[in-house]
Amino acid sequence: MSRISCPVLARRTASAAEAAALVRPGDSVGISGFTGAGFPKAVPVALADRMQAARARGEDFQIGLWSGASTGPAVDGALAGVHGLSKRLPYNSDPDLRRLINAGEVDYVDAHLSHAAQQAWFGFYGDLDVAIIEVAAVLPNGLLVPGTSLGNNKTWLERAHKVVLEVNSWLPRDLEGFHDVYYGAAVPPHRIPIQLTHPMQRIGDPYLRVDPSKVVAVVETHAPDRNSPLDEPDDNSRAMAALLVDFLRHEVAAGRMPPGLLPLQSGVGSTPNAVMEGLLTAEFEGLTSFTEVIQDGLLDLLDAGKLTSVSATSFGLSPAGQQRFLDNVGSYKGRVLLRSQDISNHPELVRRLGVIAINGMIEADIYGNVNSSHVMGSAIMNGVGGSGDFARNAYLNFFVSDSLAKGGAISSIVPMVSHVDHTEHDVHVLITEQGLADLRGLSPTDRADRVIAHCAHPDYRDRLRDYVDRARAARPEARHTPHLLDEALGWHAAYLREGRM
Amino acid sequence: MSRISCPVLARRTASAAEAAALVRPGDSVGISGFTGAGFPKAVPVALADRMQAARARGEDFQIGLWSGASTGPAVDGALAGVHGLSKRLPYNSDPDLRRLINAGEVDYVDAHLSHAAQQAWFGFYGDLDVAIIEVAAVLPNGLLVPGTSLGNNKTWLERAHKVVLEVNSWLPRDLEGFHDVYYGAAVPPHRIPIQLTHPMQRIGDPYLRVDPSKVVAVVETHAPDRNSPLDEPDDNSRAMAALLVDFLRHEVAAGRMPPGLLPLQSGVGSTPNAVMEGLLTAEFEGLTSFTEVIQDGLLDLLDAGKLTSVSATSFGLSPAGQQRFLDNVGSYKGRVLLRSQDISNHPELVRRLGVIAINGMIEADIYGNVNSSHVMGSAIMNGVGGSGDFARNAYLNFFVSDSLAKGGAISSIVPMVSHVDHTEHDVHVLITEQGLADLRGLSPTDRADRVIAHCAHPDYRDRLRDYVDRARAARPEARHTPHLLDEALGWHAAYLREGRM
Ligand SMILES: CC(C)(COP(=O)(O)OP(=O)(O)OC[C@H]1O[C@@H](n2cnc3c(N)ncnc32)[C@H](O)[C@@H]1OP(=O)(O)O)[C@@H](O)C(=O)NCCC(=O)NCCS
Ligand SMILES: CC(C)(COP(=O)(O)OP(=O)(O)OC[C@H]1O[C@@H](n2cnc3c(N)ncnc32)[C@H](O)[C@@H]1OP(=O)(O)O)[C@@H](O)C(=O)NCCC(=O)NCCS
Repeated sequence: MSRISCPVLARRTASAAEAAALVRPGDSVGISGFTGAGFPKAVPVALADRMQAARARGEDFQIGLWSGASTGPAVDGALAGVHGLSKRLPYNSDPDLRRLINAGEVDYVDAHLSHAAQQAWFGFYGDLDVAIIEVAAVLPNGLLVPGTSLGNNKTWLERAHKVVLEVNSWLPRDLEGFHDVYYGAAVPPHRIPIQLTHPMQRIGDPYLRVDPSKVVAVVETHAPDRNSPLDEPDDNSRAMAALLVDFLRHEVAAGRMPPGLLPLQSGVGSTPNAVMEGLLTAEFEGLTSFTEVIQDGLLDLLDAGKLTSVSATSFGLSPAGQQRFLDNVGSYKGRVLLRSQDISNHPELVRRLGVIAINGMIEADIYGNVNSSHVMGSAIMNGVGGSGDFARNAYLNFFVSDSLAKGGAISSIVPMVSHVDHTEHDVHVLITEQGLADLRGLSPTDRADRVIAHCAHPDYRDRLRDYVDRARAARPEARHTPHLLDEALGWHAAYLREGRM
Repeated sequence: MSRISCPVLARRTASAAEAAALVRPGDSVGISGFTGAGFPKAVPVALADRMQAARARGEDFQIGLWSGASTGPAVDGALAGVHGLSKRLPYNSDPDLRRLINAGEVDYVDAHLSHAAQQAWFGFYGDLDVAIIEVAAVLPNGLLVPGTSLGNNKTWLERAHKVVLEVNSWLPRDLEGFHDVYYGAAVPPHRIPIQLTHPMQRIGDPYLRVDPSKVVAVVETHAPDRNSPLDEPDDNSRAMAALLVDFLRHEVAAGRMPPGLLPLQSGVGSTPNAVMEGLLTAEFEGLTSFTEVIQDGLLDLLDAGKLTSVSATSFGLSPAGQQRFLDNVGSYKGRVLLRSQDISNHPELVRRLGVIAINGMIEADIYGNVNSSHVMGSAIMNGVGGSGDFARNAYLNFFVSDSLAKGGAISSIVPMVSHVDHTEHDVHVLITEQGLADLRGLSPTDRADRVIAHCAHPDYRDRLRDYVDRARAARPEARHTPHLLDEALGWHAAYLREGRM
């Protein structure tokens, strides 16, 4: 049975190639998709074919691509493969596209994920020509049943001049009822409070709306989401999980947190996912989650009954995790709610709910600045994503990473980070497999003492200590945040030169 | 006539020395005061005398001091003078205390001003032993008429074990009615939306409450606020003002802002103040303001009828501005509203209202990272203050500075800032007297082009251009944010060595 039961929209069905033909060189295109879930499976690939053909004729064909967050090889990979992107925002994790961005070929605008929709509304990114949005079904009245992510879909559907829908029959039809699309948003001076006071509260509709007169094509697909295997938890991530659990226990005992904790946010990456595992065997019950992405760790907690429910904007499951979800879709209804990313990550809500934010990082420095996005200051890894939305507004935030990278050639704890995504004002607790540094309420030099003693790998500890001591000695009148500016980034420079810090 | 008309509290009157005797070595003390307005005038000085005497006897006597923001010589100056502080948060601008912080003698916790109250509530700073709060009057029922700033007064009054009140008869009795103290705040999971939708909306009470059983002393004073003269606008700040006004005009014309703009926030410092002047002669009418501090520039706009009203947490006036306010207090009632700093700077409200944030800076780098707080990476100037609360959540933010400092020996536009308070993700527009760089929606390398072409001083432009070009060439596979890590902070290092960049 077709998933397109609206007679008006049913008349717009088209092939992927026909739909792709509606995109013009130079267009800005907004797509669905977030962490490999819910991206359009067919039209971008067809568009890449058109671009390829254009290139073969010696013509230029590039577009600007706006998404929720990362997509999959069928979008970023395919379009990068034909050099079809001139601009990309607000997040990417595709390795091929990453290479082009780092080659200086693609302009990448790496933005807080809660900011992208509003900045589009403000007009900061210019016009949106086309939206390509995957949905699970089109209802008789034209309302859309969203898929496995909401991301910026609402905004792209509203802002775009033309809309292409992909109706993917691979998506469980049972996804109906999993979404809460908030239609109360406005642009200043017309904004009102968002009346949400607990993570699972519904404040919107289960459906996306679209102006049928803008829909230029409806394409039927049957294709799975991209799902990347997550690294199995190793000794290091188990050690970090134990440290986190122990710390939370201590906070509860100190009366700084209720016994069921506060809503959890767990960031993308293998380490935050593994750290969630630690909660499986801990004593905390009745956990809640107000997060961006549902990775396997959260699903495990749900299945174990430790976590009552989770609010997010997308899934980021391994193939096994995805299968588990698909096999039991119905059982998750009412316990999993997907929201638009400007709501899932909203500073207003993150602060109000008092989220506990747990995110990965590339590196941290001794004073508590965190780099989430850049390798050796210049090359982008993924982007800041939602980490800043959560960390800045969290009740309590954690940044987690192995103390070493690249087999020990790199220390993740450095004198000065080579790029700052989260400033010293914004970082509460650092965790590596070596230990945990609670930085709350400390001055920079006290922070340095703790970070070096607790988080740095022993192989690098003495050199970090020596750095601080010499920096203090070098400028006795500048000891608030002692630095040796000739050396501060010297560890990174040495790595680039010699392959080790 | 006494300002203390509550019979219960009237019985607690004491001398400043008697009140100061209630503070013990090692105490954490929370005081009123924000930008030199509303700090306690007598007890800290008396406390400094006690500390001095203790030192003379060879005893240690230091306290931790928590405030709203900066105070005056009678607090930070006096206590620094006797080495009476071990810890200070969340903001300071006193030059004597700054020297001690930079000497490594005082632990300074430089925090977002909207975070201080909640982190105290969360228990992140430990117990608060004593609060010393200046008020304008004590009403018969024990309610307190606040003074010229609200800052963290509500929180300190509630959290402290003991309370000392200073009732300052120098403050106009007419301040009654100028305040809106929000009593709906709670700690997660009990928080609710803050139901404020326009800058002047009242959501609280005109009075501060205090548990009379905690009040250990009530001290009568008659002493003025500290008010520092602001630099007269010079050609550079006039040029920046003209650029700002022109840009706002352009935004209105492009439909990205209503003709009466959106609520203005203007940061501390001479430059943001001067920039406000530019709005005096511009065509915009019916302006509003949702800000932290009322400097002279905002008062001028109010007096000129350009600005209908202003919501803030404090005054930061020059002596002349203060006199003007005092001479006409009554006329400002209903047009000036003071709030607690966790409300004046609240991310929820700043984002909802769509604030236009204009803040000073120490330096910016070519990629749009901004340093508001540190000189040459290590020495603190003031602190991040509220700049991050506003900039991160603003509809549109501006950072303003002369392109040169120290007579041209320093470029305020550098390859890499020596400290990051506002990341590249958070900065919209940079303005120097050279020009304006609109960074919205740009990739890092496009940002660099604009910042160098529009904001850098011509004396430094070629060297900045050369830096980017060589960085691009050096690592063709790392061109997202091209940097030369051996040189990135070299300009600062050269300044420290040779006195010029
Ligand atoms: C920072 C981030 C990349 C870490 O991810 P992770 O899976 O936990 O970490 P890994 O240890 O697997 O590291 C990922 C890569 O970074 C590299 N890396 C890690 N630390 C590094 C360091 N200090 N220097 C250089 N490279 C480093 C790893 O070697 C690995 O690279 P490879 O794939 O080439 O081997 C990831 O958390 C991220 O993208 N964060 C930003 C967005 C975000 O936080 N969103 C959360 C809101 S939901
Ligand atoms: C950044 C800040 C200090 C600028 O203040 P300002 O009065 O506009 O700027 P000035 O040009 O007068 O500079 C102040 C001092 O910094 C120095 N300075 C400015 N730029 C500098 C640079 N690039 N390198 C070194 N020193 C610099 C000036 O020389 C001056 O020092 P001096 O007093 O020793 O002469 C001020 O805005 C601030 O403290 N901001 C942080 C808090 C904040 O933004 N709050 C706003 C929320 S309300």
